[in-house]
Amino acid sequence: MTPGILAGMRVVEASAFVAAPSGGMTLAQMGAEVIRIDLPGGGLDFRRWPVTDDDQSFFWCGLNKGKRSVCIDFSTPEGGELAAAIITAPGEDAGMLLTNYAPRGWLSHETLRAKRADLIQLTIQGKRDGGTAVDYTVNPTVGIPLLTGPQDAGGPVNHVLPAWDLLTGQMAATGLLAAERHRRRTGEGQHIKLALEDVALATLGNLGFIAEAQRGRVRERVGNYLYGAFGADFECKDARVMIVALTLKQWTALCRALDLETVVADLERVSGLDLSLEGNRFRMREQIAALVSTRIRERPLGELGPLFDRLGVCWSRYQTVAELVARDPACSTVNPLFAATDQPGVGSILAPTIPLDFAAGGRLPPIPAPRLGEHTDQVLRTLVGLSDAAIEDLRHRGLIAGPVVRASE
Amino acid sequence: MTPGILAGMRVVEASAFVAAPSGGMTLAQMGAEVIRIDLPGGGLDFRRWPVTDDDQSFFWCGLNKGKRSVCIDFSTPEGGELAAAIITAPGEDAGMLLTNYAPRGWLSHETLRAKRADLIQLTIQGKRDGGTAVDYTVNPTVGIPLLTGPQDAGGPVNHVLPAWDLLTGQMAATGLLAAERHRRRTGEGQHIKLALEDVALATLGNLGFIAEAQRGRVRERVGNYLYGAFGADFECKDARVMIVALTLKQWTALCRALDLETVVADLERVSGLDLSLEGNRFRMREQIAALVSTRIRERPLGELGPLFDRLGVCWSRYQTVAELVARDPACSTVNPLFAATDQPGVGSILAPTIPLDFAAGGRLPPIPAPRLGEHTDQVLRTLVGLSDAAIEDLRHRGLIAGPVVRASE
Repeated sequence: MTPGILAGMRVVEASAFVAAPSGGMTLAQMGAEVIRIDLPGGGLDFRRWPVTDDDQSFFWCGLNKGKRSVCIDFSTPEGGELAAAIITAPGEDAGMLLTNYAPRGWLSHETLRAKRADLIQLTIQGKRDGGTAVDYTVNPTVGIPLLTGPQDAGGPVNHVLPAWDLLTGQMAATGLLAAERHRRRTGEGQHIKLALEDVALATLGNLGFIAEAQRGRVRERVGNYLYGAFGADFECKDARVMIVALTLKQWTALCRALDLETVVADLERVSGLDLSLEGNRFRMREQIAALVSTRIRERPLGELGPLFDRLGVCWSRYQTVAELVARDPACSTVNPLFAATDQPGVGSILAPTIPLDFAAGGRLPPIPAPRLGEHTDQVLRTLVGLSDAAIEDLRHRGLIAGPVVRASE
Repeated sequence: MTPGILAGMRVVEASAFVAAPSGGMTLAQMGAEVIRIDLPGGGLDFRRWPVTDDDQSFFWCGLNKGKRSVCIDFSTPEGGELAAAIITAPGEDAGMLLTNYAPRGWLSHETLRAKRADLIQLTIQGKRDGGTAVDYTVNPTVGIPLLTGPQDAGGPVNHVLPAWDLLTGQMAATGLLAAERHRRRTGEGQHIKLALEDVALATLGNLGFIAEAQRGRVRERVGNYLYGAFGADFECKDARVMIVALTLKQWTALCRALDLETVVADLERVSGLDLSLEGNRFRMREQIAALVSTRIRERPLGELGPLFDRLGVCWSRYQTVAELVARDPACSTVNPLFAATDQPGVGSILAPTIPLDFAAGGRLPPIPAPRLGEHTDQVLRTLVGLSDAAIEDLRHRGLIAGPVVRASE
């Protein structure tokens, strides 16, 4: 089987939760060897919900697919030395560390670099000064919850998706690859820092929110409407749909599908606004929504869906996660993104591989998450050169954990 | 000035909206030369809101910082040939294309590869079959809106942040760097595909939603509560705050800060649940929230904030975007992420550079977005080898646009 586009790269992950693990998993799913180091018994996220009835975490299994798992008590000096040895073990495409632990003690960049001069270390922080922050505390500070939800919401609406964590994790993967490229050209490693708070702030800047606010414009809540163009949710006879007319082509398609041309022309005449311009569609969103609603609310999705698809309307159907999983072919093995995996400790999971579909280098199938500590012995043997006796002694003293795997196995 | 970690790399972007431009900008902000090609007059996103009073898009300026802009009418065969020439122009670190246009005609991979055998092309699609989808239609299908918002919301709550677009863009940057690394080692380019829909589906899988649903578990709406641990929003005397106790350390800090130890012990006794376990804190979230609320609702933030910080409580304050921009030092030039830039057509913008802080290779300051077509002449001259006369002829025939810049300038 094709080994994957990053085959040969080795990254060590000292991590927990979403950001660092999702970044590390992106690299693992492209074929890199990613070794995740946890304390014996698991890290802070090992039991993170959702969990099975016997407390196996679907979350952990989802975010650590395809990695190796090593358990070391790195809260002790000796354990820290072992972890450092794994991180700095030789190899042209190795010596890469992704972490959301503070770069102190055995994890300080200076300490690690003394063991491997070209080390690449990427530290994910909550705040740029190292202070505590998580996705769910960053989001309130950047204004998004007060812009989310119905206009009469009366208070902030938090997001369910940890978008900042996910974006930070992906940016960490990008940063590691950029630094690895730099190292190949110059021989130089480095320490890279990435703050969750900065990812959120930069995004607000990139989308224009900051420049707008600097000029005194107050962005209002607009409920489910798409800002700046036409987009809204509607009930048809037997389903709820989202319809978007962001581009002129999509707007034309919608007008044609629902025979809106005449009433739209009337609306343009009465308002004096050219609705071929997306900003005007946003201004007139309530009127346009009313027109669309009258045209669709008594019609079943079985009729509207094919009509929309035939004419190129940009739309979708609201589904619950249960409905997605039960009936949507996109969330099944019909979609090459997915395969059924046998996840140790859990059972069969419909699991995704990486969305990136490389024509060369191959698209690896999803590989289950490891059992906790599954690779402790193997990694200590191959990367640190420890004997079975040394490994047994470490286990006996509680410095490492995981199933016993002797050299002969 | 240090040139940036990707200095020497050249990427061409044939793109619009959020996903591809944000991915391309990530590379530009690390020092790559990123040439964005648009139709004369601008692409579908050129006037995307928010806009200035004279219709300059803050959105476009935010997502295209640091790029070069070339305007070519690539809807014509001759224009397509010009664009293809730019994409496939020689250079060891060049021949890279990021696009969300369908790979047809002059943009087909086979056609472009005939001009440059080692071309790397990354095509972002809405759906994996090439069908139309945008962030705002993908989100409803994956179940998130029906999990967002107050428990009595009565309908879906769309997200304001185009999280799927942003994540896809970041993943595109990762994919391009992975492919470039592969090419460096093997000489081989390739076509990479990335579907927005797949990014969302994979994320649902990675966070455990799919496995949970496969087992018949129905995820409920929980309003502003953090799923699976303790986290909630509260009103204190003069502000609204988010408080999170995801880890035991954060929970202990919260209990200490608000003198909750006794009442928590009572709650544990009454419920029979050990609240040191995050799942139990989630089960008892309403009771815990009531306790926290009584302790803080009459106290001003000026008292609670320092108390929380001193004891290591994980918390933040809800702000509007206006408040963020007006008073939060994190959203100012106190934060090295930001600098004041002079954006052509708009004026002064507090703009972010990339959140990745590379110790070596340097952190570039934010560079304004180009004027539309600002680099048309320069790029056609240097990459395609056209003379001033040839360029003038193309402009005369409407095939290119942008300010005239002669070779001597």
